[in-house]
Amino acid sequence: MKYTITLSCLLLVFSFGSAQNSMLGFSEKSASEQQAIEKAFEEKLNSSNIDNWMQKMAAEPHWVGTKFGEENAKWMQDQFKSWGYDAKIETYHILFPYPTERVLELTGPTPYKAKLTAVPVEGDPFTDQGDALLPSYNAFSTDGDVEGELVFVNYGIPKDYEELEKLGISVKGKIVIAKYQGSWRGIKPKLAAENGAIGCIIYSDPQDDGYGRGDVYPKGAFKNKTGVQRGSVMDMPTYPGDVLTPGYGATKDAKRLTKEEAPTITKIPVLPISYEDAQPLLEALDGPVAPESWRGGLPITYHIGPGKAKVHLKLKFDWKLVPAHNVIATMKGTEFPDQWVVRGNHHDAWVHGANDPVSGMVALMEEARAVGELAKKGQKPKRTLVYCAWDAEEPGLIGSTEWVEDHKKELQEKVVAYINTDGNGRGFLGVGGSHSLQAMVSEVAGAVKDPQTKVSVKERRIARNMVNGGDDSFELYALGSGSDYTPFIQHAGIASLNIGFGGENEGGEYHTIYDTYPHYKRFKDPEFAYGVALANTAGRITLRLANADIIPLDFTQWHKTVSGYLDEIMEETSKMRSSVEKHNKLIDRNAFSLALDPRENIKAPERKEPVPYLDFSPLQNVIGELKASIDTYNKLDLSSLPKAKKDKLNAMLMDAEHKLLSKKGLPRRPWFKHQIYAPGFYTGYGVKTLPGVREAIEQKNWSEAREQIKALSETLSNFNEHLKEIISTLK
Amino acid sequence: MKYTITLSCLLLVFSFGSAQNSMLGFSEKSASEQQAIEKAFEEKLNSSNIDNWMQKMAAEPHWVGTKFGEENAKWMQDQFKSWGYDAKIETYHILFPYPTERVLELTGPTPYKAKLTAVPVEGDPFTDQGDALLPSYNAFSTDGDVEGELVFVNYGIPKDYEELEKLGISVKGKIVIAKYQGSWRGIKPKLAAENGAIGCIIYSDPQDDGYGRGDVYPKGAFKNKTGVQRGSVMDMPTYPGDVLTPGYGATKDAKRLTKEEAPTITKIPVLPISYEDAQPLLEALDGPVAPESWRGGLPITYHIGPGKAKVHLKLKFDWKLVPAHNVIATMKGTEFPDQWVVRGNHHDAWVHGANDPVSGMVALMEEARAVGELAKKGQKPKRTLVYCAWDAEEPGLIGSTEWVEDHKKELQEKVVAYINTDGNGRGFLGVGGSHSLQAMVSEVAGAVKDPQTKVSVKERRIARNMVNGGDDSFELYALGSGSDYTPFIQHAGIASLNIGFGGENEGGEYHTIYDTYPHYKRFKDPEFAYGVALANTAGRITLRLANADIIPLDFTQWHKTVSGYLDEIMEETSKMRSSVEKHNKLIDRNAFSLALDPRENIKAPERKEPVPYLDFSPLQNVIGELKASIDTYNKLDLSSLPKAKKDKLNAMLMDAEHKLLSKKGLPRRPWFKHQIYAPGFYTGYGVKTLPGVREAIEQKNWSEAREQIKALSETLSNFNEHLKEIISTLK
Repeated sequence: MKYTITLSCLLLVFSFGSAQNSMLGFSEKSASEQQAIEKAFEEKLNSSNIDNWMQKMAAEPHWVGTKFGEENAKWMQDQFKSWGYDAKIETYHILFPYPTERVLELTGPTPYKAKLTAVPVEGDPFTDQGDALLPSYNAFSTDGDVEGELVFVNYGIPKDYEELEKLGISVKGKIVIAKYQGSWRGIKPKLAAENGAIGCIIYSDPQDDGYGRGDVYPKGAFKNKTGVQRGSVMDMPTYPGDVLTPGYGATKDAKRLTKEEAPTITKIPVLPISYEDAQPLLEALDGPVAPESWRGGLPITYHIGPGKAKVHLKLKFDWKLVPAHNVIATMKGTEFPDQWVVRGNHHDAWVHGANDPVSGMVALMEEARAVGELAKKGQKPKRTLVYCAWDAEEPGLIGSTEWVEDHKKELQEKVVAYINTDGNGRGFLGVGGSHSLQAMVSEVAGAVKDPQTKVSVKERRIARNMVNGGDDSFELYALGSGSDYTPFIQHAGIASLNIGFGGENEGGEYHTIYDTYPHYKRFKDPEFAYGVALANTAGRITLRLANADIIPLDFTQWHKTVSGYLDEIMEETSKMRSSVEKHNKLIDRNAFSLALDPRENIKAPERKEPVPYLDFSPLQNVIGELKASIDTYNKLDLSSLPKAKKDKLNAMLMDAEHKLLSKKGLPRRPWFKHQIYAPGFYTGYGVKTLPGVREAIEQKNWSEAREQIKALSETLSNFNEHLKEIISTLK
Repeated sequence: MKYTITLSCLLLVFSFGSAQNSMLGFSEKSASEQQAIEKAFEEKLNSSNIDNWMQKMAAEPHWVGTKFGEENAKWMQDQFKSWGYDAKIETYHILFPYPTERVLELTGPTPYKAKLTAVPVEGDPFTDQGDALLPSYNAFSTDGDVEGELVFVNYGIPKDYEELEKLGISVKGKIVIAKYQGSWRGIKPKLAAENGAIGCIIYSDPQDDGYGRGDVYPKGAFKNKTGVQRGSVMDMPTYPGDVLTPGYGATKDAKRLTKEEAPTITKIPVLPISYEDAQPLLEALDGPVAPESWRGGLPITYHIGPGKAKVHLKLKFDWKLVPAHNVIATMKGTEFPDQWVVRGNHHDAWVHGANDPVSGMVALMEEARAVGELAKKGQKPKRTLVYCAWDAEEPGLIGSTEWVEDHKKELQEKVVAYINTDGNGRGFLGVGGSHSLQAMVSEVAGAVKDPQTKVSVKERRIARNMVNGGDDSFELYALGSGSDYTPFIQHAGIASLNIGFGGENEGGEYHTIYDTYPHYKRFKDPEFAYGVALANTAGRITLRLANADIIPLDFTQWHKTVSGYLDEIMEETSKMRSSVEKHNKLIDRNAFSLALDPRENIKAPERKEPVPYLDFSPLQNVIGELKASIDTYNKLDLSSLPKAKKDKLNAMLMDAEHKLLSKKGLPRRPWFKHQIYAPGFYTGYGVKTLPGVREAIEQKNWSEAREQIKALSETLSNFNEHLKEIISTLK
């Protein structure tokens, strides 16, 4: 019995038909059994369940705290039970704001009162549910009643404020209007407030998310002029989850912060609007014409302001504790009941949420049903499976975060991996996650057929990468934030994955009243074939993790990736240095001043602080040491380990990802403990890899960069020590 | 007396204050005299002349054949005479179409009749001249009356037709609608016809040329929704000038082709329209959504068609011979009367043409006036000056082309160089031309002050280049086409320059009824300071060429540039080869098919013919030999040449550029004889350097590429022989 652990071995194995049964973490015999299980599992998947359940769960709006949301949770609990799971509902009590007053008006020069309401459309009765639809707003905006001059700030991200600085425009005491996109929405009010603004409006520009992308709903899938993207603006890069209970579960009797103390509620009021409502506001602006890259798709000349255009923004919310119902369905493992594979998707939506989250939720359910059927026939998983349906993901990953915080110790002891899904559609497989899982995911992706082309989903994905100029390889992307994997990986250090299909399911329904079953059926995954493909992919991964003889982690790929991140940071630092040198050379030549149009009131840029040389050697050294350890580990013969050693090995493998946490967490946001992946402090969802070091450098905080190089080296050294312990245990 | 000929010497000289009097082609003594002349010349320049003359010349529309155009010519003749020139009007008789019927209507699904008329605007009475304004049309469109389905073809350039091919859309029997820009306008109907279309509509999209660029006229400078760009669509890349007299002067009794025989009239009717008229047409299209890069700034989803949208296009023109009046003003040189420096700008406009061409024309006149005043005070030029005001440039460089064709032999014998200007505005100096003139132009640019920043126009230009990522150097761009230098350099092989200021004079008035004095005064060059700067720059260049002891050509720079073109072509060929290899590798993997959305009707690309290795060595060898000759030439001591040798040297230098012609001219367009610079056959105005070789490779015509490498090597060898003759003459 020979276990294949390294990627290079895998590649070799893939080349020979004779070694078909090779499967990472499985003996040849176990691999045969597992293939049979997966085949049986796949055959049980049924697209009409996915279709029917979507119609049921997306029939009414079901944001956290709604009756329909609770009904969905109970119904799912019953379903899980009927499939043989031990299913319960775990409820947390979380702060959730409901909008009671929303006023946005242009008070001058030409008055305009924003409608703030999307229109029902023909052929989609779900859009005609009137007051049952949640009014469009940004959750965790603070209450406010402000009036001021309007300033257009493009996407409202850091480089936009640098541009405003050049133009000599301040947003202090002003209300900003920013386009959606360019960052996670919550960054916009955060930066606006940091820059002194008193209010923030976010709108969907038709170029990014409307007729500029394709025909609008109901003719096509894209956002019509009245559609508004709801969404949370909680400061999740600081910490996600209930704003009143940072770091611990929002149980009934938990000690809570007051709302006023909660650091993750915005400092200024913020409201999302449609492009129909945005146009009169933008049209009223004077001041300089916006830079070319700032201009959107409205038929106007985009100006920045400030000036005559004044707006009044008034927002009031009903802040109350609402119950968030997580459904937790467990199937005990036959061999390793205390080793859990956790699989989750959220069930709450902003409105009907046919795509987000129901398309992923019902695929998870179909997966769980098929697994349950196998179990009923005796093919039970060796490790415990925990299927979860999270509530309150939309307002800030709250259901999952509270559960992880509440059960953190137990989860860190028991969970092998967490596998997340969310909205899903037609197209290409995309998987993000811990890179020690990449080799296993790649094997599974090679075994799942694409419903449209009949090649493997891996091959189709690679084909697309190559057409887009990429490599002939299947890789996991690094996880930032934006769905329920965040508390698992970034707070608890549990190896995690996020899986979905997409790329042929475009649309503008995200977080609007148009994310309905008719829209999904027409534009996302008409035959629910990709719902089945998702259940197939995630289910096989879940079952492999559950049944593997040895937990299928591969550190060769992990090392290559992390080492690549370091190279990237060092290269970026060099580029930054050359760029500053070049910039200062131009200052010496007076070139910026001479190149400016004297009639435009633009400030020539100033001399920049030179970028120092940083000592990256501690990281380079530990990366080298890790390579040596991993090479040694890869050479070990794991094929004939006695059970005790195998158990010990598995326990230590389960512990590996935890070693990538630091106790202190990241600067200014200690909740985020993972040292390899984090959402960016100024990007929101977008990942920053090796975040402590990378963000310090990006922010030109050189002393912090030096500290973080030290901290990261220590974390990686701990990880290396752990690997060395594994090796010495096995020898 | 030491002549500085090489650029490296020049740079050295610039570094030492003591060598201030160094001037390419002048002895130290002559340089001192020349500096005094140029200083006196500069002091005579007066912006109010430029202002007043613009008001006079742009008071009424004056396209070729109009009474006002003729009056302008006669008035200029009188002015030149009053400044001491021998001024005459040389008239050619050219075919010019005037639109008598213009109908464009959407016949289905929703009828719409295009207005085809720009509106008068407040504050600009010139826009309110009703029928006196030339109707918007494209000159040298054929007559036609066609009806067909509409297809949107983006810019209607070669890569757009490749994209249509992929989408499985043919324009055969259809009427195409193309956006302005992306190429010279005449390419659009040419390619449309080559692809089987029966009609062509061109419109200005607001993203490229309207509210997407800035506030529209009259609030701002940009194109309002009714503005239409007129312009010629004659097939100028085949030959410019009168369509009936290719290669010879359109004199009264010249033998003429019939209109039907004229190859440069379009094959299909073509009409330019406003974005207001384009919107209903584009909105009516169905078929696939246009690729992202095709979409413009109208508030619609851009579709390609074909389908329900049908249009009817009917165009009739009054085709008649009209007189084109060139004003030719001569001041005989005191020492070398048979060596001419020719300086020109056109005087005809599409409508009022305050910017195009009057801003350049009146700067030329102010320059000529100042030169005339100097002459009256005894400071006459050593060589003959010929100031020209061309007619009929707009319909196809006709006035200048006929004159050059008519006088070709004499011009090739006598002209030292041709210096062209055209529309001018506020901003940065841009000079294109023969690279043997670069060193001299760079010296002059270092001597002219920028009106806004008070550094030299050279320094300001370099500052801008550097800010945009360019080098710390002043370089000439290569000449394609688009103004009256074309017959001089590309047909007759006369060293030429094209000079203008711009970059801070944006607007959408080009070839519309909005190119008026009020528009110019507000947005282009409010104080006419750049009119003075243009007169100063072009005048100094003219005077240097007129007075130099030795004609100021520098071959070091020329060699560097031409050698760079060859490197570029070889690199492009390699890139093309790798790209085809990569493409075919993806075909082998079936990657394109797998990456396509099966629901979209897109054809996977086909295998491409591999790019062969071409033998560039004949060119590499002659480039090497040229380097040796030029190095030898640069080492010659020209400071103490006897007069006879100096005269012989000047005669041979005048002949140098002619050696860059080939007798046969370029494939399929023998009128274009220059082997270094030509307008692209499929770009129109955009230059192709080493055009025979470059275009053959771009068109993947490998046998022609081999022939053209041979032809170009022969031309460059002839040039080298000429340099070697110069050297042996001087030894």
